[in-house]
Amino acid sequence: MVMQAVSPVVITKSPAYGKARSTVGGAPLSADEAKKIHAYWRACNYLALGMIYLQDNPLLKMPLKPEHIKNRLLGHWGSSPGLSFIYTHCNRIINKHDADMIFMAGPGHGAPGVLAPVYLEGAYTEIYHDVTQDEEGMKTLFRMFSFPGGVGSHCTPEAPGSIHEGGELGYVLSHAAGAAFDNKDLIVAAVVGDGEAETGPLATSWHINKFLNPARDGAVLPILHLNGYKINNPTILSRIPKEELEALITGYGWTPYFVEGSDPESMHQAMAATMDKAYQDIRNCQKAARESGQVERPRWPAIILRTPKGWTCPQEIDGHRVEGFWRSHQVPLSGVKKNSRHLALLEEWLKSYKPEELFDDEGRFSPALKPLSPRGERRMGANPHANGGLLKRDLKMPDFKKYAVPVESPGKSLVENTRPLGVFLRDIMKLNMTSFRVFGPDENTSNKLDAIYDVSKKFWIEEYLPEDQDGGELSKDGRVIEMLSEHTMEGMLEGYLLSGRHGFLSSYEAFIHVVDSMFNQHAKWLDIANHLGWRQKIASLNILVTSTVWRQDHNGFTHQDPGFLDVVVNKSASVTRIYLPPDVNSLLSVANHCLKSENYVNVIVVDKQLHHQYMDMDFAIKHCTKGAGIWDFASNDQGEEPDVVMVGIGDIPTMEALAATAMLRAEFPHLKIRFINVVDLFKMQPASEHPHGLSDHDFDSLFTKNKPCIINFHGYPWLIHRLSYRRTNHDNMHVRGYKEKGNINTPLELAINNQIDRFSLAMDVIDKVPMLQVAGAHAKEKFRNQQIDCLSYAHEHGIDKPEFSNWEWPL
Amino acid sequence: MVMQAVSPVVITKSPAYGKARSTVGGAPLSADEAKKIHAYWRACNYLALGMIYLQDNPLLKMPLKPEHIKNRLLGHWGSSPGLSFIYTHCNRIINKHDADMIFMAGPGHGAPGVLAPVYLEGAYTEIYHDVTQDEEGMKTLFRMFSFPGGVGSHCTPEAPGSIHEGGELGYVLSHAAGAAFDNKDLIVAAVVGDGEAETGPLATSWHINKFLNPARDGAVLPILHLNGYKINNPTILSRIPKEELEALITGYGWTPYFVEGSDPESMHQAMAATMDKAYQDIRNCQKAARESGQVERPRWPAIILRTPKGWTCPQEIDGHRVEGFWRSHQVPLSGVKKNSRHLALLEEWLKSYKPEELFDDEGRFSPALKPLSPRGERRMGANPHANGGLLKRDLKMPDFKKYAVPVESPGKSLVENTRPLGVFLRDIMKLNMTSFRVFGPDENTSNKLDAIYDVSKKFWIEEYLPEDQDGGELSKDGRVIEMLSEHTMEGMLEGYLLSGRHGFLSSYEAFIHVVDSMFNQHAKWLDIANHLGWRQKIASLNILVTSTVWRQDHNGFTHQDPGFLDVVVNKSASVTRIYLPPDVNSLLSVANHCLKSENYVNVIVVDKQLHHQYMDMDFAIKHCTKGAGIWDFASNDQGEEPDVVMVGIGDIPTMEALAATAMLRAEFPHLKIRFINVVDLFKMQPASEHPHGLSDHDFDSLFTKNKPCIINFHGYPWLIHRLSYRRTNHDNMHVRGYKEKGNINTPLELAINNQIDRFSLAMDVIDKVPMLQVAGAHAKEKFRNQQIDCLSYAHEHGIDKPEFSNWEWPL
Repeated sequence: MVMQAVSPVVITKSPAYGKARSTVGGAPLSADEAKKIHAYWRACNYLALGMIYLQDNPLLKMPLKPEHIKNRLLGHWGSSPGLSFIYTHCNRIINKHDADMIFMAGPGHGAPGVLAPVYLEGAYTEIYHDVTQDEEGMKTLFRMFSFPGGVGSHCTPEAPGSIHEGGELGYVLSHAAGAAFDNKDLIVAAVVGDGEAETGPLATSWHINKFLNPARDGAVLPILHLNGYKINNPTILSRIPKEELEALITGYGWTPYFVEGSDPESMHQAMAATMDKAYQDIRNCQKAARESGQVERPRWPAIILRTPKGWTCPQEIDGHRVEGFWRSHQVPLSGVKKNSRHLALLEEWLKSYKPEELFDDEGRFSPALKPLSPRGERRMGANPHANGGLLKRDLKMPDFKKYAVPVESPGKSLVENTRPLGVFLRDIMKLNMTSFRVFGPDENTSNKLDAIYDVSKKFWIEEYLPEDQDGGELSKDGRVIEMLSEHTMEGMLEGYLLSGRHGFLSSYEAFIHVVDSMFNQHAKWLDIANHLGWRQKIASLNILVTSTVWRQDHNGFTHQDPGFLDVVVNKSASVTRIYLPPDVNSLLSVANHCLKSENYVNVIVVDKQLHHQYMDMDFAIKHCTKGAGIWDFASNDQGEEPDVVMVGIGDIPTMEALAATAMLRAEFPHLKIRFINVVDLFKMQPASEHPHGLSDHDFDSLFTKNKPCIINFHGYPWLIHRLSYRRTNHDNMHVRGYKEKGNINTPLELAINNQIDRFSLAMDVIDKVPMLQVAGAHAKEKFRNQQIDCLSYAHEHGIDKPEFSNWEWPL
Repeated sequence: MVMQAVSPVVITKSPAYGKARSTVGGAPLSADEAKKIHAYWRACNYLALGMIYLQDNPLLKMPLKPEHIKNRLLGHWGSSPGLSFIYTHCNRIINKHDADMIFMAGPGHGAPGVLAPVYLEGAYTEIYHDVTQDEEGMKTLFRMFSFPGGVGSHCTPEAPGSIHEGGELGYVLSHAAGAAFDNKDLIVAAVVGDGEAETGPLATSWHINKFLNPARDGAVLPILHLNGYKINNPTILSRIPKEELEALITGYGWTPYFVEGSDPESMHQAMAATMDKAYQDIRNCQKAARESGQVERPRWPAIILRTPKGWTCPQEIDGHRVEGFWRSHQVPLSGVKKNSRHLALLEEWLKSYKPEELFDDEGRFSPALKPLSPRGERRMGANPHANGGLLKRDLKMPDFKKYAVPVESPGKSLVENTRPLGVFLRDIMKLNMTSFRVFGPDENTSNKLDAIYDVSKKFWIEEYLPEDQDGGELSKDGRVIEMLSEHTMEGMLEGYLLSGRHGFLSSYEAFIHVVDSMFNQHAKWLDIANHLGWRQKIASLNILVTSTVWRQDHNGFTHQDPGFLDVVVNKSASVTRIYLPPDVNSLLSVANHCLKSENYVNVIVVDKQLHHQYMDMDFAIKHCTKGAGIWDFASNDQGEEPDVVMVGIGDIPTMEALAATAMLRAEFPHLKIRFINVVDLFKMQPASEHPHGLSDHDFDSLFTKNKPCIINFHGYPWLIHRLSYRRTNHDNMHVRGYKEKGNINTPLELAINNQIDRFSLAMDVIDKVPMLQVAGAHAKEKFRNQQIDCLSYAHEHGIDKPEFSNWEWPL
């Protein structure tokens, strides 16, 4: 009865079935090798299936019973066999050539297919000591998979050898490229799921080949796994005509090698032949470039592996097609604990891999098969590139203080805030040419960081035109990476960091939202990694957010969005840091700190235009170390409780708050104003919530317990309330910030529309300070009129009144 | 001297230069037609240039002087000439065939190149009455461009004929497909910028051709504009070998027709011949499908237009290459107000278009050229499809009450919350087969909405295998669109709505973050559109966020992110709505409301698993209308002030809060608990901040002025503080929610780790209610032990204790 159910259904014309058909011919495996490699794969499949189903009886020594089955069946079978198949053939290449390879599983849910060979090679046991290479260990391996307190069903940080979780799809190729940069001998085998391949980020990341230098960088070997189905649908790439798929991959600049079929024996031969060819292609391309010094883009190989979804599972269950169909996506037989027929089917299925030939009675892996796993650090589950902190060296840093701009007197000189940072980054790059990279979606020049190009130009390996010599800043030697894809830039940087290097990404503020979800995933990775003693710390992800909301004179409303910070603050306090330095020297101090840090995401918000300078370097360092503090030059409450606290957070809001302070002090010489600038945003949060949070005592002594605080903030104003709602003086905090009141505006007009301008702030003070509520009426009217006058001027002339755009701190 | 500067530099081998080279041969334009079409294009270029530079002297009647130049030069020349070129040739096709076409400019910053022909065709004047078709009007046109209070430098909502702003890049093809669906005669000319083409969303959206039915839908004509450069970099697609580009477009399933060069005369002929061919291809494909009833995917035409960036601007300025290089991206001559040589160059450049041949002395467009603009609604600036509210018809809605589930007694029966919604959507689809669509990234079945397929299956035009007949739900007649790209789904839905139809998108909660930035852009569009009297209201963007954070037993930490709401609340209150219905009937009531609404983004958060039902339909309607209210069945404070207020927001948090309430009432019969459920999240915000906000009076009478409120929230807890920090009782509000404490967890374990579970809530109450702080010690210990016991059980068995997962409201 059981046999009847698993008896083959009529094979359809699905191109995933049948004897192997492949672009590369030949049968390189001897009969013995073929037998062994198939056995190794069977072992992987057996273990994968065990992880999904079994909590006991791992070697099937007893007849399978309901109590051996986990209470909840969580995990995904669908792509596991394909992943193990690829992993096994990568192992063959590693052994044959002593190759340095790591493995990235794009189809995140196929963790059983990756964890299985990682266990077989012993790497799993070295980290999880109780998962021994015997029956008891196998039982623990099975039990802990997708189990509370255990390891997840993706290639999570807990998975040895993984630096690509794949929980959210789309980033495997950009991660792979990041890992390959400046690792000339490394090959990253990157399995692209055909579901994942439909995402935007993955679709554009095929272009990574335009950024890999065959002389200097490692290689990415994409293996597009045409598994055929997503959760409930066929995939697009598995169903378009083969000629179109071939054209597509060719058009992306790769040489496609197809391997298609389901017959194991011929598939092993075809895959081995194809892997041999791909490996030789890669090494030939690299050798040619390295020996000749001629760097051209090779048409690197890419493998297209078409196999049935759920390969080797029952073809039909209860009259429904399973293998080679979407029904094998997750847990193909889900009722096994209660359905005896299903239980028998499962037992049959498990036994179809002949575990008795693979493991001895104690559960030890067959000595004949063991040598198929590479050894030591060549094992992909133990390759140090996939635990990058092991390889990370401290960044060599020049003294950031030497990039300081002189500040004789605060608020009197204008400098483009990001430009000296570009010089600092240039010199960091000079000292760390093979372990530091700068990424940007086409905007390093626009963001005033172009000093970098003095040391390293933008990598460019495509057609080069004569005009490129005058301002193109393109070079085959360049290490700056620019592509108009925030996704690809972020992904490459993550891959670079996770494999043990350092880097920096800059983006327009509004469009950093494009990678909100990538930030989320990386922050989650770091959060978990922090709890794993064996994962060494990696360099922080440093994101410069510039071209900010307040200076979008060209671009208008679409380019005004400071809300990335609201996304960042939702992630674990142990991995998130946000800085809003108001001038050059504070930016340099902050950047220096961030570039030296580990396991954080550091977000630095600063505009690229000309801005006032307030702090000389000594003061900037002190101020940034505190993270929030009083600016004496702007305060007149020395030694006394102030009447009002004025707070600037961010460059432009700080300038407007200073201007308001000056106006108020001119009008009301006896008004005692304390001026605070906050650089480190998390200072606003209680120390119990964030390690950077000020203690309540320190917060109260800065912000007072009961005086009005007018807080002028760079972002959405509510974020400040969200951070500080528990503070003693919260009820007196009046926060201004961006309120979605924008269009084509002059800078001051935009500030006025959102009430972060000097006039609004000065009027806020008059409203909130009791002693001014009557006495200030005249001044308030004056400020109001000045404000109206500014708006009229902007609408008439298209620019701000010169006296306001050329404002200097007057005191 | 001036002439010297504009004298031609040596033309490089750039393939953008020279006589036209094109796939399609022929020269269909008569000499007169060619001359006129070129003159029309010159007029566009003249106007575009005027918009960027001039505030006076629009016809150059006087010698150009600094005072004629705007104070700030804001706008982008680089892609404008190419956009006008394409627009002009679309006009020719419209006139020739009486074709129904709209225009989408992917390179957003090229607005001058679109606004110019919109002005010439009179559509601009019909909306902006002071922008008359004469000298004064031209001056106003120039002046208001990218000027405070004027129109922006993208194709913003203010731009007649635009439903694609392009401020953020990447969405032109998905928007175009959305507009083409169910508009069988419409052709959407979609210009893809080669910068934009590098983004992920654009890269995958070439696959829109897999979702267009030639019999039933309109067509998208992509025109990839190889303009060559981004801000400071060459583009990838303009520099890869032509064979690769051809393969890429072919691989995406299109028939590429190249048009390359810079020589205007031959370029007009080549473009006309190519547009003729593309138009005929489209109509032939459609005719074949419509006449035969045989629906196959045509290899639709796509045009690849390669022209020099900044085409027709000075080739060199101050010794630097400008035309055909990135320097022409923005304002090629930026110092004209102060640099007399540049001013003379600009004058020369303006005069090179011979405005005197194009406009008469009064600024009226030449009568000989006027007929080149289409007439009436055929003008792309006046086509009603691009002001979709004009065409929108009310959705025909069945009575949602008939999908109600019976609820005899609250909290005693389990139903999958989204399943009846699927039936409701099915019947809406049945009544609105050509004006309602459901989109999802592969998850309508997973999200339990699969009843839809009874009426309309998933559209599928690729290979169809025998197994698809059993559960494939694929059909060439289907109108449900599924592709594993949140970007493409969101973009298609936006295009469908903006062109006057209705729709619905569902997504996994964590991965709706993938389209954070698309949401931002659409919300901004609606916000501006709300202020434009001539833009008719469109149907709301309805997003169902499901597979929520609290039920990710398979997926773990990567799939736990309720932070999309934090993104949504930052956008204008006039366009944002958030609902968290706790059960089926409230979900139906909310969905009914959302589907009827206009110009909002409605976000509905509800899980798809089995959940308790609390409200019968009558009560659900009343409750949802209020948005927040007391649940009497769970409250025992009738007629009195409660000792504590327990609040549930969201399905699972509500259940846990109810369970805590039951536990507390069993322990402390005299404790008066008020139970509140909030469906409409913005009720928490003051009425002054959001139109849905409760008045302070109403809020205080619900939440009390001084009693402890334990609020159990679906999302990140701080969001509640951000909304309610101004409320009287805010200091007594203790909010629980998701705090990034997750991994592979059972549902209850995850709740416990984040303290939204019944035990934590009950202990919170004991801590916060003065009368329990001593009396509750024993109960607190008991709850703590139960909690520990639950965690142990989960870690031992991999599931929650049955008594908790089968919990029912016991009172």
